[in-house]
Amino acid sequence: MNNKPETPLLDRVTIPSQLRALPESDLPQLAQELRTELIEAVSTTGGHLGAGLGVVELTVALHHVFDTPHDRIIWDVGHQAYPHKILTGRRDRIRTLRQEGGLSGFTKRSESEYDPFGAAHSSTSISAGLGMAVASDLAGIKRNVISVIGDGAMSAGMAYEAMNNAGALDARLIVILNDNDMSIAPPTGAMSAYLARLVSGRAYRSFRETAKQLAKKLPKFLQEKARRSEEYARAFWTGGTMFEELGFYYVGPIDGHNLDHLLPVLKNVRDTMDGPVLIHVVTQKGKGYAPAEASADKYHGVNKFDVITGAQAKPPANAPSYTKIFATSLIEEARHDDRIVAVTAAMPGGTGLDLFGEVFPDRTFDVGIAEQHAVTFAAGLASEGLKPFAAIYSTFLQRGYDQVVHDVSLQNLPVRFPIDRAGLVGADGATHAGSFDTGFLAALPGFVVMAASDEAELRHMVRTAAEYNEGPISFRYPRGDGIGIDLPERGSILEIGKGRIVREGSKVALLSFGTRLAECLMAADELNAAGLSTTVADARFAKPLDEDLIRRLAREHEVLVTVEEGAIGGFASHVLHFLSRDGLLDQGLRVRTLTLPDIYLDHAKPEVLYARAGLDSAGIVEAVFGALGRNHMVAPARA
Amino acid sequence: MNNKPETPLLDRVTIPSQLRALPESDLPQLAQELRTELIEAVSTTGGHLGAGLGVVELTVALHHVFDTPHDRIIWDVGHQAYPHKILTGRRDRIRTLRQEGGLSGFTKRSESEYDPFGAAHSSTSISAGLGMAVASDLAGIKRNVISVIGDGAMSAGMAYEAMNNAGALDARLIVILNDNDMSIAPPTGAMSAYLARLVSGRAYRSFRETAKQLAKKLPKFLQEKARRSEEYARAFWTGGTMFEELGFYYVGPIDGHNLDHLLPVLKNVRDTMDGPVLIHVVTQKGKGYAPAEASADKYHGVNKFDVITGAQAKPPANAPSYTKIFATSLIEEARHDDRIVAVTAAMPGGTGLDLFGEVFPDRTFDVGIAEQHAVTFAAGLASEGLKPFAAIYSTFLQRGYDQVVHDVSLQNLPVRFPIDRAGLVGADGATHAGSFDTGFLAALPGFVVMAASDEAELRHMVRTAAEYNEGPISFRYPRGDGIGIDLPERGSILEIGKGRIVREGSKVALLSFGTRLAECLMAADELNAAGLSTTVADARFAKPLDEDLIRRLAREHEVLVTVEEGAIGGFASHVLHFLSRDGLLDQGLRVRTLTLPDIYLDHAKPEVLYARAGLDSAGIVEAVFGALGRNHMVAPARA
Repeated sequence: MNNKPETPLLDRVTIPSQLRALPESDLPQLAQELRTELIEAVSTTGGHLGAGLGVVELTVALHHVFDTPHDRIIWDVGHQAYPHKILTGRRDRIRTLRQEGGLSGFTKRSESEYDPFGAAHSSTSISAGLGMAVASDLAGIKRNVISVIGDGAMSAGMAYEAMNNAGALDARLIVILNDNDMSIAPPTGAMSAYLARLVSGRAYRSFRETAKQLAKKLPKFLQEKARRSEEYARAFWTGGTMFEELGFYYVGPIDGHNLDHLLPVLKNVRDTMDGPVLIHVVTQKGKGYAPAEASADKYHGVNKFDVITGAQAKPPANAPSYTKIFATSLIEEARHDDRIVAVTAAMPGGTGLDLFGEVFPDRTFDVGIAEQHAVTFAAGLASEGLKPFAAIYSTFLQRGYDQVVHDVSLQNLPVRFPIDRAGLVGADGATHAGSFDTGFLAALPGFVVMAASDEAELRHMVRTAAEYNEGPISFRYPRGDGIGIDLPERGSILEIGKGRIVREGSKVALLSFGTRLAECLMAADELNAAGLSTTVADARFAKPLDEDLIRRLAREHEVLVTVEEGAIGGFASHVLHFLSRDGLLDQGLRVRTLTLPDIYLDHAKPEVLYARAGLDSAGIVEAVFGALGRNHMVAPARA
Repeated sequence: MNNKPETPLLDRVTIPSQLRALPESDLPQLAQELRTELIEAVSTTGGHLGAGLGVVELTVALHHVFDTPHDRIIWDVGHQAYPHKILTGRRDRIRTLRQEGGLSGFTKRSESEYDPFGAAHSSTSISAGLGMAVASDLAGIKRNVISVIGDGAMSAGMAYEAMNNAGALDARLIVILNDNDMSIAPPTGAMSAYLARLVSGRAYRSFRETAKQLAKKLPKFLQEKARRSEEYARAFWTGGTMFEELGFYYVGPIDGHNLDHLLPVLKNVRDTMDGPVLIHVVTQKGKGYAPAEASADKYHGVNKFDVITGAQAKPPANAPSYTKIFATSLIEEARHDDRIVAVTAAMPGGTGLDLFGEVFPDRTFDVGIAEQHAVTFAAGLASEGLKPFAAIYSTFLQRGYDQVVHDVSLQNLPVRFPIDRAGLVGADGATHAGSFDTGFLAALPGFVVMAASDEAELRHMVRTAAEYNEGPISFRYPRGDGIGIDLPERGSILEIGKGRIVREGSKVALLSFGTRLAECLMAADELNAAGLSTTVADARFAKPLDEDLIRRLAREHEVLVTVEEGAIGGFASHVLHFLSRDGLLDQGLRVRTLTLPDIYLDHAKPEVLYARAGLDSAGIVEAVFGALGRNHMVAPARA
């Protein structure tokens, strides 16, 4: 890995002020060096590559034109900000990306003053930027605020809400619409089609020739009071009406890889704007790296790879991923029941619904980055007798929480929620962890809340959810591969609200909700070896609870430890409430609850995170010993 | 109340099929009778009036043209659906509106087959309608689906997400944009301004004259393949571009009070549409009832009133409302600290921020019905050193949950969340209850979560939140009036994570979180009278917990009962987790948790709901007796 590229110009740029000292004529070379460095770095770490490659020139131009960090650049999602990190004092750590103790794969306030707002979930940048612009206005500080947002992120309602508000406030906010016609999934939605029409308009085709001339003219026109009059507008854009109607001044589309186009437009906007401006920049994801350009996903997220060939290292997979098990299970159920349909919010690949969509294209709905709509759309489908599976990651389901409460749960509509990425997620870090779903779903009356303890259980739960038609039902499963257990051809129908005893013991009971069951079994081995006869149970359901099972565990054991990969407020809370209500605590019960810790865990390898969370077998054993008190080591001898 | 109006036509219409049998020439009179009946009914019940008055003609027209309930009409929010209820078999119960056992103030699936989708929160109708339209297509059923949505609701991102998806799916969906230029609050946002431009355009002014002619032409044009070409479009609309760009065919604006305009347009759309259509209807809130028309809020929500004079009954107020205490307290703090700013999502009146805005107009931001944006906008303000108070009802904060997690909590930004309407809300029913906020906020690392036990405490918490700048902080308080306690001029700064003992006892401990404290004190009186010496404590904080206080209560009492107006997963869950972690359950503790029950409570008087939830003094006493077992009555004698 020592074949680092020659980067003489980039070597002189540690922070943006040094970049600003360079003549414009040096910037194309700087961009090229930055691109090379980015490719080399990500080839050693893995991570998001395509998006960063697409904004190399834009990143250089922004830091050249704007006075960062006084001026604020907010990168929406933040996974395209690796070039920005390299230029803002973090080049020396860029090969620590997404590794424990290293740089985050997203922007992060605690990491740099050049990251004024952290990101990872899509479509927040306009709202945050508007807040900053308004704050600067109130404080009488002259400051440019630039939100860089992709075209995919524009399908989210949040972006629209922010545009609608910015237009009305007439705030000094620059929105750069980075139109690469491709978010993680292929573009969906009418907005995407609209942008394509803008880009294909004649003004874009002729813009290359007239760019310099136009740029020179901009200031004069912008300063005119009448700049929003239809006469003016018509002269300068083929489209952009929609943004104009929302109160933005629209500039573009312009070529985002051409610094001769970017620099004058950015300067003019900086110097003359007095209200919200949207600059429509067209870029190419994966730009400048042939293997990325040639790939279908433009190297959106990659493993370590060989720079010359582009060949990615494949991590050894011992078992199929939970995602894939979900997908194949749902396909199987859908063959038996044509009422089954699937909904994704712009994550067909991540959720496995791309596979479902190949088999059932007419029964698969990708609604765009639009979780609120996805949930209520699914409720509408369910209200007409279909069986929708709304497959949304745990962390993104937070976006549709009110819709889950108000449109699904309150009406008791049988929407199925397969919840992928439940629990810790490793390199993506805290922003993508699925920590809260069990709590916020099990709080809802009538909701059936399940967690799969292994891939066979996941298959059963897909079948169970397909059959259950009495109301909403969810099942969570983690990121990553299963444990390699034998899979049934088709899942079985689980009895609602019934868990199972996996191993019988007499002194200690471990009650697991989810895939930590494997660690519970390892812990039980250790405990048994220490003379503590241990029962292990798989709760399967956080709601309705298996009260008989819990009662039995509480009555027949000295210690009861619950284990779950979720925050306080979830499975254990429901168990504790039941224990108190049922009087099972009245005479004393050494009950302990293992949950995710009450801190946000930064990115690191999963096994490191589990140890830190105390959710590995060692942590479980320790909890049992802690519950038994300092004399626990002699307890076996007494028994 | 027996001066019911004469309604000869309406008396013949119990269900829509009877309405459809009437000649069109009868419909204006039917509408007039419907309006009279609506006014008379609401005068006896109170409720939402202005919105219903605005859609009387539209309601008649829709049921005349469409084959309900086979065709689906989805009323966004649903508070304008009283005329719809009168026409769909519920006239005999219309005077039970919002009363226990009576009709809901919103649409509700369980109430009528004519309510295909329940509502109450804004902006869900397009998503739900799209789901229904797609489901009908999949099933091969020919069905019209009509979503009726107000202009205010169009500021919500969810509506945009749904439009974006509908346009791309090219679904057979009719959206009726009911443009009355006034949601609960004055219109805000660029969309609102855009609609105003459409309505003021020349086509609308001339439309009255050409309406019939246009309507006759519509089918022919609609059937043409070229109907979306620019030539065609230009001929028929002055604006509507924005909807057109989202893939909708735009019709309007038309006069929503003129059946001669409404009927032919609806019929033509019904008979000729083959993709999404948006019909822009202009109505007047409060239409046809002089006192409503003359009132600033158009009788949006009213108490019982005198039909002749319009004078509303005022319920006796013993004390100022929590809302008002919040507002005056925040104004006081803002006088001391100019970094304090306030954010509302289209609820300036409901949150009390209208009062704040009168004093500090430049520091008050109404962002529209846009909770997602509101939260992240506040995060942006906080990131620049301001002290934003994002005042959002408990139930609506669910709309911004991901933003609370991802943009506020993960970045530990000091956004303040005053949470009004926390707990049960009476006549508005389950859709507006604030049941889940403590759970979904206290699950977040680093979040400070408070609940006010009375209005003086609320004042302290406003001050505390203003001073606390280490991270996010929330405080919840209920709908309605305080208990009339003396108020300090200015609040005190509470120590973070410290509760207080309100009354000392020795056998029973009641630990209250929120305004149920008053009931706890009453319960304590009863318990003391029964010989059970009772401690009452006000927890103030669900997070961080006052561990010293809880430890003391657990160690020094036989029974510990927690009391909160929220669902499982909130305050009590955190207490139970602490008790188990601290080993306080190991030797036995008669702990019981009183929360909202695990069912959705329908609308009724608050005191009825509290009794049903077991959260009144009787319920608390019963819980204590239950914990002590069947021998509790003799316990005092033994003591």
